[in-house]
Amino acid sequence: MKFTINFQPIGIRLICDEPLTALEAAREAGIQLRADCGGKGTCGKCMIRVSDDYTKSPSAVERNKLAENLLSKGYRLACETIADNDIQIFIPPQSLLEGQVLQTEGLMAEITPKPAVSSYPLKLEPATLNDLRSDVVRIKDKMEKQYHKTGVQVPFDILPSLSQSLRENDWQINLLVNNGEIINSSKTSPEKLLGLAVDVGSTKIACYLLDLQSGKVLATKGAANPQIAFGEDIMTRLEAILRSSDNAIRLQEDVIETINQISSELCSAVSADQSEIMDFCLVGNTAMHHFSLKLPSQSLATSPFVPVTNLALNIRASSIHLNGMPGAKVFVPPVLAGFVGSDHLAFLYASGFGKGKRTRLGIDIGTNTEIALQHGGRIVSCSTASGPAFEGAHIRFGMRAASGAIEHVSITKDGNAKCEVIGNKTAIGICGSGILDTIAELHRNHITNSRGRLDKSHKKVKLEQNGIPAFVLLAKNENQQEITISQHDIDQILLAKGAIRAGADILMDHLQVNPREIEDVVIAGAFGSYMNPEHAISIGMLPTININKVHTVGNAAGTGARMMLISTTARKEACQLAGRIEYLELTTYPDFALFFANGIRSSS
Amino acid sequence: MKFTINFQPIGIRLICDEPLTALEAAREAGIQLRADCGGKGTCGKCMIRVSDDYTKSPSAVERNKLAENLLSKGYRLACETIADNDIQIFIPPQSLLEGQVLQTEGLMAEITPKPAVSSYPLKLEPATLNDLRSDVVRIKDKMEKQYHKTGVQVPFDILPSLSQSLRENDWQINLLVNNGEIINSSKTSPEKLLGLAVDVGSTKIACYLLDLQSGKVLATKGAANPQIAFGEDIMTRLEAILRSSDNAIRLQEDVIETINQISSELCSAVSADQSEIMDFCLVGNTAMHHFSLKLPSQSLATSPFVPVTNLALNIRASSIHLNGMPGAKVFVPPVLAGFVGSDHLAFLYASGFGKGKRTRLGIDIGTNTEIALQHGGRIVSCSTASGPAFEGAHIRFGMRAASGAIEHVSITKDGNAKCEVIGNKTAIGICGSGILDTIAELHRNHITNSRGRLDKSHKKVKLEQNGIPAFVLLAKNENQQEITISQHDIDQILLAKGAIRAGADILMDHLQVNPREIEDVVIAGAFGSYMNPEHAISIGMLPTININKVHTVGNAAGTGARMMLISTTARKEACQLAGRIEYLELTTYPDFALFFANGIRSSS
Repeated sequence: MKFTINFQPIGIRLICDEPLTALEAAREAGIQLRADCGGKGTCGKCMIRVSDDYTKSPSAVERNKLAENLLSKGYRLACETIADNDIQIFIPPQSLLEGQVLQTEGLMAEITPKPAVSSYPLKLEPATLNDLRSDVVRIKDKMEKQYHKTGVQVPFDILPSLSQSLRENDWQINLLVNNGEIINSSKTSPEKLLGLAVDVGSTKIACYLLDLQSGKVLATKGAANPQIAFGEDIMTRLEAILRSSDNAIRLQEDVIETINQISSELCSAVSADQSEIMDFCLVGNTAMHHFSLKLPSQSLATSPFVPVTNLALNIRASSIHLNGMPGAKVFVPPVLAGFVGSDHLAFLYASGFGKGKRTRLGIDIGTNTEIALQHGGRIVSCSTASGPAFEGAHIRFGMRAASGAIEHVSITKDGNAKCEVIGNKTAIGICGSGILDTIAELHRNHITNSRGRLDKSHKKVKLEQNGIPAFVLLAKNENQQEITISQHDIDQILLAKGAIRAGADILMDHLQVNPREIEDVVIAGAFGSYMNPEHAISIGMLPTININKVHTVGNAAGTGARMMLISTTARKEACQLAGRIEYLELTTYPDFALFFANGIRSSS
Repeated sequence: MKFTINFQPIGIRLICDEPLTALEAAREAGIQLRADCGGKGTCGKCMIRVSDDYTKSPSAVERNKLAENLLSKGYRLACETIADNDIQIFIPPQSLLEGQVLQTEGLMAEITPKPAVSSYPLKLEPATLNDLRSDVVRIKDKMEKQYHKTGVQVPFDILPSLSQSLRENDWQINLLVNNGEIINSSKTSPEKLLGLAVDVGSTKIACYLLDLQSGKVLATKGAANPQIAFGEDIMTRLEAILRSSDNAIRLQEDVIETINQISSELCSAVSADQSEIMDFCLVGNTAMHHFSLKLPSQSLATSPFVPVTNLALNIRASSIHLNGMPGAKVFVPPVLAGFVGSDHLAFLYASGFGKGKRTRLGIDIGTNTEIALQHGGRIVSCSTASGPAFEGAHIRFGMRAASGAIEHVSITKDGNAKCEVIGNKTAIGICGSGILDTIAELHRNHITNSRGRLDKSHKKVKLEQNGIPAFVLLAKNENQQEITISQHDIDQILLAKGAIRAGADILMDHLQVNPREIEDVVIAGAFGSYMNPEHAISIGMLPTININKVHTVGNAAGTGARMMLISTTARKEACQLAGRIEYLELTTYPDFALFFANGIRSSS
């Protein structure tokens, strides 16, 4: 069942398909609630106020943390509040992280909205025998006189509606102009200028409905990318296209249909119509970019993996069948290479890469992990096929970060594991951050050796039916199934982290950077946001650097897309950044295999 | 039955639906054959050579004019040769007017072809892991390196075919570029670059298939504008649109379907495919302009008659459903006012208006007659509703200039009329030039008085059944029906010529020009080409000027369209000319009614 969580006073509506905690919902909506304990109910910082339609009684944890007068006024802990129906949630300022407090006033405070689309009300002089200017010239003259806008373009196909609208509305008309081109006209000025930012990920498609003038997110929703039916990783999907053109059509339609479906729900949530969406910004990895644009993707499936185009586009949304206002455009930022897409650019732009000359590492961990190194005025990016292990795939008990997933693990010397489970439920699997913790803790306690082999003689290590050793995280009891991490699971993770480390090492080698010189590491992506950076360093996924230098930024690609949606300055700057970023092909880098082998082996 | 006349060595193919003389066919194809006697068989200048498949024996006239050795070699007179089947006609240079002789070498010798579309063969370096440029950047780089073409635009919707074509053809490709924008790609360079120039008249739609590189007309055809079913004059058709939107759709489709039909026949005649037409130029009066472009025409049907747009367009031909190469564009020159279209501009441009500062009058006679006066660096145009009388409409025995029409008339003092009939046949009616002659001759012989009233006492003037007097041009006998010109017919012509004269007089008044200052009168249009200029002056249609200053130029609008089709310089110059032409609204001119009354009355 679909329901909407309305966060106030921020004004973001999140559309949900499944029950979740208010803390999870806030994360999903991009709201940075304080939760120092990570949602365990021990810090009490994630205090919220729920509306009257929330009828659940306070939990023991809440009674422990919140005074009775607060509870009676509807105050609760976000980590204990389960939302499963339409609900309003008020977030007191003190529950927001500092940066976010700033943003509530005009979300993304660091960027001043300067939307591509502007609205121009015009009152024209009617045509007479003494003033025989054509409709188009009459409009152009008035735009120049009243708004000092010279050379406004009038696309041929809007002429009929423009001319009719002029006469039906007694020469009074409102023009919507995108980048000097009239895209639509209406009788009166629209109440709000709506835009949609879209981040098409291989796993998830995230959409944000924004007010273009204020820059405020009005509603947001993510949904699974239905292409997953064709395979979890991009390459499998690209190979499906090589097999049949029907697959190509299906994969292309999947993306756009999903976006249209989400945007329809977002519009409903704010009582708007899809036809009011007048601008779009769409980012994604290069395969998703090509799929969304219905470009032939065959060249991305085979070496040397070159895109059809890597240049920025600003095209009619209708030309890729995105539902919106007739004439609405979609801005598609540049992609950087076959496996470094506009999502990576959006992440780097949102994270301030290209501004200043600090030595910085940017890592967006996913099925493909894109890494950028900024040093001495240069920015070099690469892509590494880290695989979906950190997203729980190809791991026996792996699952995504959802209710019932072990998200954090600590292990004592004698092998007793303490597991934190999302939603404080019976564990049913383990998600990326839990897997990372396990690998790091096994290593720390020498239950695995330097090459990652499990100590078969350890009392918590058993041989599974296929003869492969496995570490028992949770033993079976009446409530709990047995959950293990096998040697095979560990190998998957070592390959993944080895790929990431090799990418970072090669970039540092290429730009002659010593890990000590790195001033800042920015980590994006769902897994990256929840992982323990210390563990990422200890298993050698990241170079050995000061833990304080590591920052996680969540779905920064979505943030970048929102920035470019609302600001032509952001579009320009992002395009300039794209022009500066050098792509480094890892597979042809000297001693690539050696870097990879070292990456797998390394640990601190 | 359709058949093709292939004029050699000029290489123009004319597609015909009805039998006609070779002289008529040459005129239709825009070939200026010498015919000093006007096709009466008396001058013998229009000598041609027919191919063997012409089996008709020489006529008495031909035997009289041509020696036996010429006749045996297939030489004939064009005015005596009836074409009713596929035929090749060779035109010896001495049979062409001087200007035309020049043009046979590269038709329209005065204009150097500089087509908007150019063809660029490219051999690209294949993508490798060491050269990861996207397809688009690879192409742009090569265009810059090989042809010094920077900033070539690649429209989004041709990306798929472009990318596929690159790979299918082993990185060897031919690009077609229109005005800096890639419009299509193919494996090899096209043999010929084909373009279509179209003149959409209210009565007739004329199409010319050209080789863009040589500027040569390859084939030509005119067809009736099927909109005539909605009424002969433009206003009736515009009113039909006000009555029903179905009419609007039908009127719009009529034009484009007819052009597509003609262009298909033209392509067949030169063994080409319609999909090879890669550029178009379309001119017409403003109503035809709006119909062709599917623009709402309601504003042209009611005062103040302003167009939706008057600006030049260069749009996808497919956007108005013109059949051609995918990506082909259609250049649509500016229109000047609600009743002064791009055909008038094309006529003025082709006639050299705007070059030099001579005082010139340009008149394109039709249902609406557009008149331009150039004087002292200014050019002012107006439109006058002269009606279809000169095209034979609303005249009892009126007909278009076809076989059986009286085209020239002389009358003796006692009222005996000598009539020349097209095709030397029994007369069945009278066309515009014959009517003009009749009016002038009646006036010269005082059979009409100064107000155009027939002298009822004249022996050749009879009262018709309705009591209206009529002059008997041809009396009834066993072979011939009676053909008369009634007072009503005369009134129609006086109204028409009065409207034209009023327009010319007002322009001269406006620019303070005395008729004596006029150095040059250029007359365009089908009627204008055949009329006797002396008679036009004597009945006062034209101001009293030296007959040697009057020149007829046939379908100069079509010539202008062909010039703009093959030359971007011509497009630019024509647009500049459009910007210079001032439109004068006659109906609001002081004393308009007086000018009109004087126009009707005037004679020399």
